Amino acid sequence: MADTRYVHGYSSRESERLADQAQTLTNLLHHDTRYPPGSRVLEAGCGIGAQTVILARNSPGAIITSVDISEDSLKRAEEKIRQDGITNVTFRQGDIFRLPFEKGSFDHIFVCFVLEHLADPRRALEQLRPLLKDGGTLTVIEGDHGSAYFHPENEDAHRAVQCLVELQRKIGGNALIGRQLYPLVTGAGYTDVQVSPRMVYVDASRPALVEGFTKLTFTAMVEGVGPEVLKQGLMSPETWKEGIAALNGNAEPDGVFCYTFFKVTARK
Amino acid sequence: MADTRYVHGYSSRESERLADQAQTLTNLLHHDTRYPPGSRVLEAGCGIGAQTVILARNSPGAIITSVDISEDSLKRAEEKIRQDGITNVTFRQGDIFRLPFEKGSFDHIFVCFVLEHLADPRRALEQLRPLLKDGGTLTVIEGDHGSAYFHPENEDAHRAVQCLVELQRKIGGNALIGRQLYPLVTGAGYTDVQVSPRMVYVDASRPALVEGFTKLTFTAMVEGVGPEVLKQGLMSPETWKEGIAALNGNAEPDGVFCYTFFKVTARK
Repeated sequence: MADTRYVHGYSSRESERLADQAQTLTNLLHHDTRYPPGSRVLEAGCGIGAQTVILARNSPGAIITSVDISEDSLKRAEEKIRQDGITNVTFRQGDIFRLPFEKGSFDHIFVCFVLEHLADPRRALEQLRPLLKDGGTLTVIEGDHGSAYFHPENEDAHRAVQCLVELQRKIGGNALIGRQLYPLVTGAGYTDVQVSPRMVYVDASRPALVEGFTKLTFTAMVEGVGPEVLKQGLMSPETWKEGIAALNGNAEPDGVFCYTFFKVTARK
Repeated sequence: MADTRYVHGYSSRESERLADQAQTLTNLLHHDTRYPPGSRVLEAGCGIGAQTVILARNSPGAIITSVDISEDSLKRAEEKIRQDGITNVTFRQGDIFRLPFEKGSFDHIFVCFVLEHLADPRRALEQLRPLLKDGGTLTVIEGDHGSAYFHPENEDAHRAVQCLVELQRKIGGNALIGRQLYPLVTGAGYTDVQVSPRMVYVDASRPALVEGFTKLTFTAMVEGVGPEVLKQGLMSPETWKEGIAALNGNAEPDGVFCYTFFKVTARK
């Protein structure tokens, strides 16, 4: 997965988006991942460290190794971790398909917002499995852009979301991976696979989510692929603009927005 | 709402489907609705009593009045209640838009799987509100067929679900009402409106839901409108058959099915 093939790009606005998203969704997605003191944890695909910070704070006694393929992302992740005074994380550059660790090196593996970007997520999971000690756990968190629906309904808005799904598919990713995690993790040889959907429901009574999720996370993410959508002619400039306006309209007082993340735990 | 305008029809298979659905979903939807002994509860739109039985069992001391516009449905609801030895429910025939009760007659109103079938659900909620005493509560539960997504993805399956949505719209209903409940209930003048989505997630590790929900509830419901879909030419017999087969395919070992109900509580 080369840098240029990460669908959301590496701009500074994208960094802000990831930070906003992490903040708003921390409790929903991470509250039940706590690794015991002394346990060895691999975070496979840490990116710029948005989830690493949460992981390390929730398991302050765990010995965390965070890897990513992008040296640039790793640098930013390290900066973030240092700024936050977190000391239980070591960073290593590496390819998720051939990580430089001995068999059984880890008690737990954590994979968050990574598989959606891989052309062969099942092989990644298969490659990770031997790195776990016997009985070790795998935790995976992924979104599913096809789980997004909203009120008012708007065809251009749906089409705009669909463009993100198509662009991700074109570069070998899968934006609908959340719903597929059960067969995927089971198929990669793990046992005791348990899926826990985490739905984000947003209406006007939840202003922090209206701002932090409907606008700053989801709509900003869709908006981010605008230049590519227009370049590839997937939508006209007019309908794209309408679609984004409609997505922002879901943040109005009568609007509602729904999205579901999927969290999986399994054993080697 | 005349008998003939209930999209799912009144066949005996439909009765079985409703009974299966009620059984499987009881905990998910009803566990947190418990009315105190002596409280006066109106169930507006009880149908054949599938929810009435649960309501009465969960609140055995409440004094429940269940109304429906269909005399035939009421008869079947009464039979069911008698068979189950339930004694705290009284049935009355009535139109939800002009119920024969004094203002402030009830402490609580319960409306489940009813609004989706009404051409003007907001007016129904407005008409119900005066029947509550001050500070009384409203509870609404509705599905949202647009919340259904699944793996493997299949275009004919999506189209089949969309046919159900269109048919319901044609007879004045709204199969996407679940997501709209917040603005709807707020707009009808209720306060303290709180929406709680109840997602049904089904994979092979949950065989009771595979059978009870993916197949016997959702797919059976879609299948039930087949004759009308073919009569109106909304799909060809071949693509319809493919779509239903694909929906049943979500019950296979690698299949996943997701659907979300929305539960609302509010005060007068």
